Amino acid sequence: MKFVTFTSASNLVQTPGILINQNEVVDLSGLGYRSLLALIEDGAKGLEGAKTAVATGPRLSLAEVTLHAPIPRPPRIFGIGLNYQSHAAESKMAVQKVPTVFLKLSSSVVGPDAPIVLPKISTQPDYEAELGFVIGKSGYQISAASAMEHVFGYTIVNDVSARDIQLATSQWTLGKSFPGFTPIGPAITTVDEVADPHSLDISLTIDGETLQNANTRDLIFKIPALIEYLSSTTPLEAGDIISTGTPEGVGLGRTPQRWLKPNEEIVITIAGLGELRNRTVDE
Amino acid sequence: MKFVTFTSASNLVQTPGILINQNEVVDLSGLGYRSLLALIEDGAKGLEGAKTAVATGPRLSLAEVTLHAPIPRPPRIFGIGLNYQSHAAESKMAVQKVPTVFLKLSSSVVGPDAPIVLPKISTQPDYEAELGFVIGKSGYQISAASAMEHVFGYTIVNDVSARDIQLATSQWTLGKSFPGFTPIGPAITTVDEVADPHSLDISLTIDGETLQNANTRDLIFKIPALIEYLSSTTPLEAGDIISTGTPEGVGLGRTPQRWLKPNEEIVITIAGLGELRNRTVDE
Repeated sequence: MKFVTFTSASNLVQTPGILINQNEVVDLSGLGYRSLLALIEDGAKGLEGAKTAVATGPRLSLAEVTLHAPIPRPPRIFGIGLNYQSHAAESKMAVQKVPTVFLKLSSSVVGPDAPIVLPKISTQPDYEAELGFVIGKSGYQISAASAMEHVFGYTIVNDVSARDIQLATSQWTLGKSFPGFTPIGPAITTVDEVADPHSLDISLTIDGETLQNANTRDLIFKIPALIEYLSSTTPLEAGDIISTGTPEGVGLGRTPQRWLKPNEEIVITIAGLGELRNRTVDE
Repeated sequence: MKFVTFTSASNLVQTPGILINQNEVVDLSGLGYRSLLALIEDGAKGLEGAKTAVATGPRLSLAEVTLHAPIPRPPRIFGIGLNYQSHAAESKMAVQKVPTVFLKLSSSVVGPDAPIVLPKISTQPDYEAELGFVIGKSGYQISAASAMEHVFGYTIVNDVSARDIQLATSQWTLGKSFPGFTPIGPAITTVDEVADPHSLDISLTIDGETLQNANTRDLIFKIPALIEYLSSTTPLEAGDIISTGTPEGVGLGRTPQRWLKPNEEIVITIAGLGELRNRTVDE
């Protein structure tokens, strides 16, 4: 299933739904969950309810609705730095023995088609195409062997980064957390629909030009290793999003360097997960 | 006023209160706020209600109640690194032109007298005495000149840090976010009771031995500058806690280095804000 959060002209409350047939959305409000996050927190029962609703629930045309980030305010967003060898090299940073983990503030999340606001105080806004995964079952000190039981599904993340702010000090969080700097979506695709999350083509284009083009098989720390490491330090919670890192091709690593300008359309595509499309605007 | 969050034998629900006469707690549950955070979010109305309650509300003996962190799960906890010259020097790190800001996960918060659990996977647990301030009025792109209008009050923070995990990569968050790694309290003292937050004696003892002893006048980036910088990147929210950084004397900077052991009592004292007392325990 492809879970989304949507509003429509007749219902401005953000509502969980399921994308079907590429052009319809099943309205899950009949299940009584106040959000997709609440459905995820409810575990197997939420999934069962959703499956039933696909057969019987009311449907809207995708054209009639506005999609938002599937989880508009995730409990936490963990970003993984330097998780493709090629990107670590272009960033002139060394890969460490353990994953490099930073936080992106949840207040920076926006959905598909929402504007990415380029802050006045940065001259170096940049993009990062990433595979994200969403925690379903909470847990602490999870072994790699049982890690995949804790994954609800997968999504696309654009880890937008103001490089001048990010790299002004050693700590990256603020430069990656401006409002609008974390587009997520369009949907969360459940684990049963992704045969192998470590063999997905991932690409990013700006106005049609391909700037990143890679495959998740090249991830250095794969999902079970990330869950084992993260959860060895902090309990993971249902709805947490872990963004697995970006491959080479970001503006920082290009010669000459290439920064985002207003009115550019960024499209990230991951095989089986859809397209995440956003346009930049000036603050 | 000194706001606290407490439970008692007859009421296990965390309840906002006010510490008075050093040994009594005024029960604010009659005001109808579900938490101290909700009272703070309500602005002047919450403060007015609390003032009235001090005169008329029910009182409990401090001995009868258990204090928790004043805000058990703050929206965000921003830590400031390297904000005393002496600590930057002992850490062998350079002070930057802008504040070094990292996140501590809110899931790491505990209250006064709660145990600090020393994780099995770290051999270098360390302490950091810090002045924290609490945002009252939300805001984005706040000027230093108007910054103090956004401060609700002050508290004490122990920025416990597993140095081996913190410094295994460039990003500090996970090493500072184990469960129990952010003792906060005992109270939030409102701004009207602190004449100058930049002239407060701050000290930390372990089992009576003084290991940190400084004054907040030596903060490099003071509160208005921190608010201006932070809010230039992300909207600050009511209940956010900013921990202003630690002075010299941490275990990392000592010769020989000194790590926390089980069954040590750590007491942080800040003039006018009280004492934050916690004991270490093995995981």
